[in-house]
Amino acid sequence: MNTDLEEFLTRLDGEIRAEGDWGKPADYIPELARIDPAQFGIAVALADGTIVTAGDAERRFSIQSISKVFSLACVLGRIGEQIWTRVGRESSGARFDSILLLEREQGRPRNPFINAGAIVTTDELLTGRSPKETLSEIVNFVRAAADDDDIHIDKTVARSETETGWRNAALANYLKSFGNLKNPPELALGTYIHQCAIEMTCVQLARAGRAIAGLPGATSIISPAKARRLNALMMLCGHYDGSGDFAFRVGLPGKSGVGGGILLIAPGRASVAIWSPGLNAYGNSKMATLAAEKLAQHMGWSVFGGR
Amino acid sequence: MNTDLEEFLTRLDGEIRAEGDWGKPADYIPELARIDPAQFGIAVALADGTIVTAGDAERRFSIQSISKVFSLACVLGRIGEQIWTRVGRESSGARFDSILLLEREQGRPRNPFINAGAIVTTDELLTGRSPKETLSEIVNFVRAAADDDDIHIDKTVARSETETGWRNAALANYLKSFGNLKNPPELALGTYIHQCAIEMTCVQLARAGRAIAGLPGATSIISPAKARRLNALMMLCGHYDGSGDFAFRVGLPGKSGVGGGILLIAPGRASVAIWSPGLNAYGNSKMATLAAEKLAQHMGWSVFGGR
Amino acid sequence: MNTDLEEFLTRLDGEIRAEGDWGKPADYIPELARIDPAQFGIAVALADGTIVTAGDAERRFSIQSISKVFSLACVLGRIGEQIWTRVGRESSGARFDSILLLEREQGRPRNPFINAGAIVTTDELLTGRSPKETLSEIVNFVRAAADDDDIHIDKTVARSETETGWRNAALANYLKSFGNLKNPPELALGTYIHQCAIEMTCVQLARAGRAIAGLPGATSIISPAKARRLNALMMLCGHYDGSGDFAFRVGLPGKSGVGGGILLIAPGRASVAIWSPGLNAYGNSKMATLAAEKLAQHMGWSVFGGR
Amino acid sequence: MNTDLEEFLTRLDGEIRAEGDWGKPADYIPELARIDPAQFGIAVALADGTIVTAGDAERRFSIQSISKVFSLACVLGRIGEQIWTRVGRESSGARFDSILLLEREQGRPRNPFINAGAIVTTDELLTGRSPKETLSEIVNFVRAAADDDDIHIDKTVARSETETGWRNAALANYLKSFGNLKNPPELALGTYIHQCAIEMTCVQLARAGRAIAGLPGATSIISPAKARRLNALMMLCGHYDGSGDFAFRVGLPGKSGVGGGILLIAPGRASVAIWSPGLNAYGNSKMATLAAEKLAQHMGWSVFGGR
Repeated sequence: MNTDLEEFLTRLDGEIRAEGDWGKPADYIPELARIDPAQFGIAVALADGTIVTAGDAERRFSIQSISKVFSLACVLGRIGEQIWTRVGRESSGARFDSILLLEREQGRPRNPFINAGAIVTTDELLTGRSPKETLSEIVNFVRAAADDDDIHIDKTVARSETETGWRNAALANYLKSFGNLKNPPELALGTYIHQCAIEMTCVQLARAGRAIAGLPGATSIISPAKARRLNALMMLCGHYDGSGDFAFRVGLPGKSGVGGGILLIAPGRASVAIWSPGLNAYGNSKMATLAAEKLAQHMGWSVFGGR
Repeated sequence: MNTDLEEFLTRLDGEIRAEGDWGKPADYIPELARIDPAQFGIAVALADGTIVTAGDAERRFSIQSISKVFSLACVLGRIGEQIWTRVGRESSGARFDSILLLEREQGRPRNPFINAGAIVTTDELLTGRSPKETLSEIVNFVRAAADDDDIHIDKTVARSETETGWRNAALANYLKSFGNLKNPPELALGTYIHQCAIEMTCVQLARAGRAIAGLPGATSIISPAKARRLNALMMLCGHYDGSGDFAFRVGLPGKSGVGGGILLIAPGRASVAIWSPGLNAYGNSKMATLAAEKLAQHMGWSVFGGR
Repeated sequence: MNTDLEEFLTRLDGEIRAEGDWGKPADYIPELARIDPAQFGIAVALADGTIVTAGDAERRFSIQSISKVFSLACVLGRIGEQIWTRVGRESSGARFDSILLLEREQGRPRNPFINAGAIVTTDELLTGRSPKETLSEIVNFVRAAADDDDIHIDKTVARSETETGWRNAALANYLKSFGNLKNPPELALGTYIHQCAIEMTCVQLARAGRAIAGLPGATSIISPAKARRLNALMMLCGHYDGSGDFAFRVGLPGKSGVGGGILLIAPGRASVAIWSPGLNAYGNSKMATLAAEKLAQHMGWSVFGGR
Repeated sequence: MNTDLEEFLTRLDGEIRAEGDWGKPADYIPELARIDPAQFGIAVALADGTIVTAGDAERRFSIQSISKVFSLACVLGRIGEQIWTRVGRESSGARFDSILLLEREQGRPRNPFINAGAIVTTDELLTGRSPKETLSEIVNFVRAAADDDDIHIDKTVARSETETGWRNAALANYLKSFGNLKNPPELALGTYIHQCAIEMTCVQLARAGRAIAGLPGATSIISPAKARRLNALMMLCGHYDGSGDFAFRVGLPGKSGVGGGILLIAPGRASVAIWSPGLNAYGNSKMATLAAEKLAQHMGWSVFGGR
């Protein structure tokens, strides 16, 4: 199978590069807006422990919102189901940075993968500790999951986002006004922004997702029950207002980031990381989404049924 | 395995009946409001062709919104992907009969499983044919899927809903005002209401779901590719604003109806029908949801990973 | 003063006709869409009993939403302040036919001048009587106010609107679903549509507004206290989502209709009717709004202070 | 007339104090929440130059949102109608601190009297100057209007609001994210909060309103044309989501503040300041609203028609 997969990924890399329309990198973080969109990388971690790659799979990129999966995993490890008193588990039916629903629902974000929900998750982790300690916990969790210590926060990206991230600042202050932040807004926000600025390669990210995929040897860091829940949330809310479209086309749980990365999970089979910086209308990587669709189709990995 | 499942369903039936809190039947359709909530039935159709049941599995109930899965299957069979120009594939983040999003999105319903979306689907089927012919097509499709001709529309329920279904009448007229109904609103609405009034037993419904589950011998009526898509939509939008909660707790695609039924799909493994008339706050059957959770847990059927 | 006003209106008529951009007639009522927009009429009823006119002041037009002022006056006469349990008194901050707010506010329209609110008002008048009797009451009220029996309903317009008025049908059914219609939706809607189809000339309408302006000899039909309240509502909500703009530019209470008419009230001084069929972006007559601004400015009639 | 008014105000003071239900002071600014609600003052500045008072008319209170009228007057004086490219003139149909509409309208506040709109107004004044200079301009404008130099900012209140004003911080950051703030959010917000913390007595505030009422000798500071526009905005949007109710009951333009004050304008006749710290459900002073209604009724001052 691995030979077939290797051949497929090489072909896929060629097909993606031949597409021609890469989409546009996120423009609201100046540091990310400057990245050349004509890049593509993919790494597939399989149940047998092997990693198959193609393209720019060793290039570091900003994982951004993909970090929300790891911070949620940390929170679930620490306080478990209690987190659901502060954040919901439903699709938002709105953009990732929408503030509208937050008013209608009185400060309780619809799910932990929209920005408001992730700020709440990080705020929970921050409680009783400094931002530095909190960030260490999240980064160390990712390192342990990937079994690789060479994973760091890109402070240039964090600074860039801090200077222009007014919408997230609005969300943090709004949450605070409803009493759904335990820490000062600027502290929760600063920690959240730094967590989003974690840099990883496709290989590192695919390795870090093995526990969520429930692959052999990786389940000690996230229990199977927690992994199932993370996957359910990724399936329902992992791609913002394009989650339904992604589920329909790909049929696998995934989580995107505006840095152009997607973490894709084939439960029991594989953990996949795909990266291409140009985004589609929903704010998800255009080429990574297409590659995810082609990969899932080729491998027959859809959780919704075989060929 | 079947012996284990039989024992489990018998135990489950006892546990559900011991719960004590059945929820409240739908109150907006007078004919349904009168039903005794203290009822429970379950039928599981397995890949080996056997059907295992417990409780009131042979009692007929009004399938209501579960019919939306079958009418969508009919439309996909007839015009295929073109239907997505008229209706979306995203969670609505709102109640099943919300009209609010319809205004924001200019008459294009968010998905085919909220009422507005299902009225559009039925309107598409109605185009070029009479309501009677359209209803025959839907009922015959269900009969063929269940391999059972004894499936009918309960006209008393249809009449009851027609007399008090003002919110659906509002939705139909609103869709028409945006040009997203091809037929007169009362015609599309009347056909939709009759389709919802199809009566089935758990056994019949479980059998009808086998094609969606991709079980052997059942795939001729719905292709595997279409079945995967139906499952994706059921997972994302099958339980209205409680879809996330259902995915999180159960981990399987499903579709509920206000008659108290749930069609639950374990792709490649089983098609399950559960019925109990009392509803929870989202408008889904309270006890059927609980039973779905326990069954999926016991069998390890979650599509999001094993135990 | 009247000589000055006569000269001013003649000059105004010329200026309006020279503007060149008439706006577009309402397109959602086919019968109204066919009217030539290049028409303009104005009639001013003064405190001394005289009427000064210019342009097409004797031409009949469909008063449409201006009828809401008269039906509200009828309801206030019959049940008084009780009507406010069914409808609010606040600006809607939305289009005249918005259904969105109705969902947020659970079926209680924001004010009696948006369509939903006017349907509720008419429904109240309809209670205990036939549509025919109700329409007689409204038409007779308008005739008495105008002191002119030659005022009728244009049945061609009513029929035209009935055939295509799906959005109003949606509103009526939606109100019913919240229990805020006492009569069947089609009955309340039919009566409302016929009331909107009353035809009047500018002269007739200006005369009918004298009681609202509190002009001498006209107050027996509407008490001064009721007139003040009608004026307050016209000021706050008389021009849908352009009410603030109208108040800012004109400084007088008014009520527009999609037929192109505006009833303008200078309390204690004059009742003015202006008509020109082309509409602006808010759905109010473009040239009638401009004429109202020029007239109020010229006469120093703003209620918000003199020159 | 003044003797009658004196007697009336004395009687009114007694009636208000006898009412018994004062409402609750604003709770979101700790410093204001501590004020005894059982206080009431009123001052009426008449066209003849006299001031008639009753109750606690010489007690200083925090004018809060009433300051929005003065900052808007400053902006109109500086850049005139250009301000309307950044802020609208329509009622919001929502609470004073709603963020929802801001999302729908892409960062352009509905009017300058909701918090978001006032932050934009202040931001415009701030452009090219320091917060200190900007605040001096506003305070000096108020002093000139009141002809009284003993008017100051209460820094304790400003500090109290700075520490807990997360919702306003959310609004400011949100405006910035849409590009509708020229200055850093914290600067615009800080200036806005200090402007709101201006302290005045009823006598001072009634005097400061004379130019808006167009009283003799007061029009040099605000031109009659500007005064009419301020009155139009106060009538339409001066009491947040209770503006319609206020217009209906009182019939005069006014602007409330959460400190319990109301500036009430009877164009050409009087400028009135009323104060009582307890608020009603809309966030307007409960007893000041009642007093305004009784005063306007007694004097026959409604702009919507006489008795």
